[in-house]
Amino acid sequence: MSEATINKISSVSLRENWVQFIHGLQDTICNKLEQIDGGAKFKEDKWERPGDGGGGKTRFIEDGIVFEKGGVNSSVVYGDVSDTMRTQLKIDGSKWFACGLSIVIHPLNPFVPTVHANWRYFELFDESGKQIDCWFGGGTDLTPYYLFKEDAIHFHTILKQTLDPFGKNLYALYKKECDHYFSNHHRADETRGIGGIFYDYLRPENEDDAERLFSFQQANGNAFLNAYLPIVEKRMSVPFGEREVTWQEIRRGRYVEFNLIHDRGTLFGLKTNGRTESILMSLPPRAKWVYNYNPVPGSAEDKLLQVCLHPKEWIDN
Amino acid sequence: MSEATINKISSVSLRENWVQFIHGLQDTICNKLEQIDGGAKFKEDKWERPGDGGGGKTRFIEDGIVFEKGGVNSSVVYGDVSDTMRTQLKIDGSKWFACGLSIVIHPLNPFVPTVHANWRYFELFDESGKQIDCWFGGGTDLTPYYLFKEDAIHFHTILKQTLDPFGKNLYALYKKECDHYFSNHHRADETRGIGGIFYDYLRPENEDDAERLFSFQQANGNAFLNAYLPIVEKRMSVPFGEREVTWQEIRRGRYVEFNLIHDRGTLFGLKTNGRTESILMSLPPRAKWVYNYNPVPGSAEDKLLQVCLHPKEWIDN
Repeated sequence: MSEATINKISSVSLRENWVQFIHGLQDTICNKLEQIDGGAKFKEDKWERPGDGGGGKTRFIEDGIVFEKGGVNSSVVYGDVSDTMRTQLKIDGSKWFACGLSIVIHPLNPFVPTVHANWRYFELFDESGKQIDCWFGGGTDLTPYYLFKEDAIHFHTILKQTLDPFGKNLYALYKKECDHYFSNHHRADETRGIGGIFYDYLRPENEDDAERLFSFQQANGNAFLNAYLPIVEKRMSVPFGEREVTWQEIRRGRYVEFNLIHDRGTLFGLKTNGRTESILMSLPPRAKWVYNYNPVPGSAEDKLLQVCLHPKEWIDN
Repeated sequence: MSEATINKISSVSLRENWVQFIHGLQDTICNKLEQIDGGAKFKEDKWERPGDGGGGKTRFIEDGIVFEKGGVNSSVVYGDVSDTMRTQLKIDGSKWFACGLSIVIHPLNPFVPTVHANWRYFELFDESGKQIDCWFGGGTDLTPYYLFKEDAIHFHTILKQTLDPFGKNLYALYKKECDHYFSNHHRADETRGIGGIFYDYLRPENEDDAERLFSFQQANGNAFLNAYLPIVEKRMSVPFGEREVTWQEIRRGRYVEFNLIHDRGTLFGLKTNGRTESILMSLPPRAKWVYNYNPVPGSAEDKLLQVCLHPKEWIDN
């Protein structure tokens, strides 16, 4: 990538458009989730990064009828590349800029899956302030407690339909990345859920490519509600009892393990002096740890576990 | 330290005596805890490390009258120093040996503190099989949910009385190490509890010193029940309600954060292909995360939080 290209890509307009898109999407998603919930409303905490620069808008919902705990958080942050970032996050450069939207929704009903999505844009600068690197990253993934094959198919179909116009090979690639990334390596690579898509370090090759990647990110962001909400509406009124709640809490323990031990986003936030409460918003409202718990083979709980231990293709590629 | 000294220290007898001591202490502690509980009994899982060598005896108790979840785990493990150990754990050498006892007890009643203790012995060898380093490490610390000053004083007094014969300066030193080690750096260095003692890399300078350190470890191991049990017996029948349980679960969330993000022992176990269920035995049975939760200033909950944010001296040094 030539210097001229880099400077065009790093033009203020791309960055501004991205920030604007993120904030618009944050509004859209919060409004729609509130409407579905019918009880709780999102509250907003605006925060600023101490020391360095930037901040964010944390929107959180708690104790809803449908959504027990959730966050739809935007942040626009920048600063000096620290030693910790260099050694632990392998980020090389002098200054960095990042802007993204992060979503984690933990519903109350164990038959409604937890969902996670994130879309981000990152820039790196050298000491003279010249941009030396930039990339997009993101993804959307589902963490059900009980497996409904038709829900998994619906979720993955929407993601594939969104990616296909940008490259017929992308869904298969990013689906695989997602299974690999969201897995508890300390538990025989058991995945956190039934996956979705995950991609990172998508670097624009030229100006047109930057616009293409921007559209790609927009398409993914805009597809989120279509992928998730039909599943919520289908399962939110299914009756449940103590058995389902216990299993939900045990699986949520695995969610906590992944986020605190393996998740690069969580690590990045905590190591870059991010706002802890906004970062750990992703943690579930309740979790349980039972020593060496294994569901009864063949049970509904075991069926979910098996697809986490052996990730499968939900749709034809 | 001369080679001759090293070879004497690494003599099979020291190692064997240590293994024997660890297993004896494991029996003593389990028996006494069962007696106090009066309901649940410890169960044992023997395990072997796949690939490398060694294994352990995991003793766990669940759903007791007094103890909701707990583990008293011994392990005698050894293997080749892996790249992960070299880069992430800063361990240099060709082969390693470790033997230790790890205890985490989470009582049911929020007025009874969680306790953690660990005593370990570690050896490193070069390619020819010659010992190049060895050290002892350990500690005992308390994580109450509600603060009773007299309990904190009792706990720290027993620890100090145990350390004093080995050096009048040790308690102050290891108490400070403990506050520093068991703190959630991502939460303004809030400590996990009210501390205790923590020490690591105690390397014997000669054969007499190895015996002295062995006695030191034994004294600490043997003091555990005296430090903890009087507090359990005093608080286990205090009535509690929903408010106390909620606060206990929120604090247990912080316990999970520390163990999964910061704890070197957990990291060591997971990175050395340890047995996940034995390592994560330390996690509490239940935990809660409430967005940006702050107790009412001046409340009993706040009093505990304040001593975690501002660690204090419980006894005169």
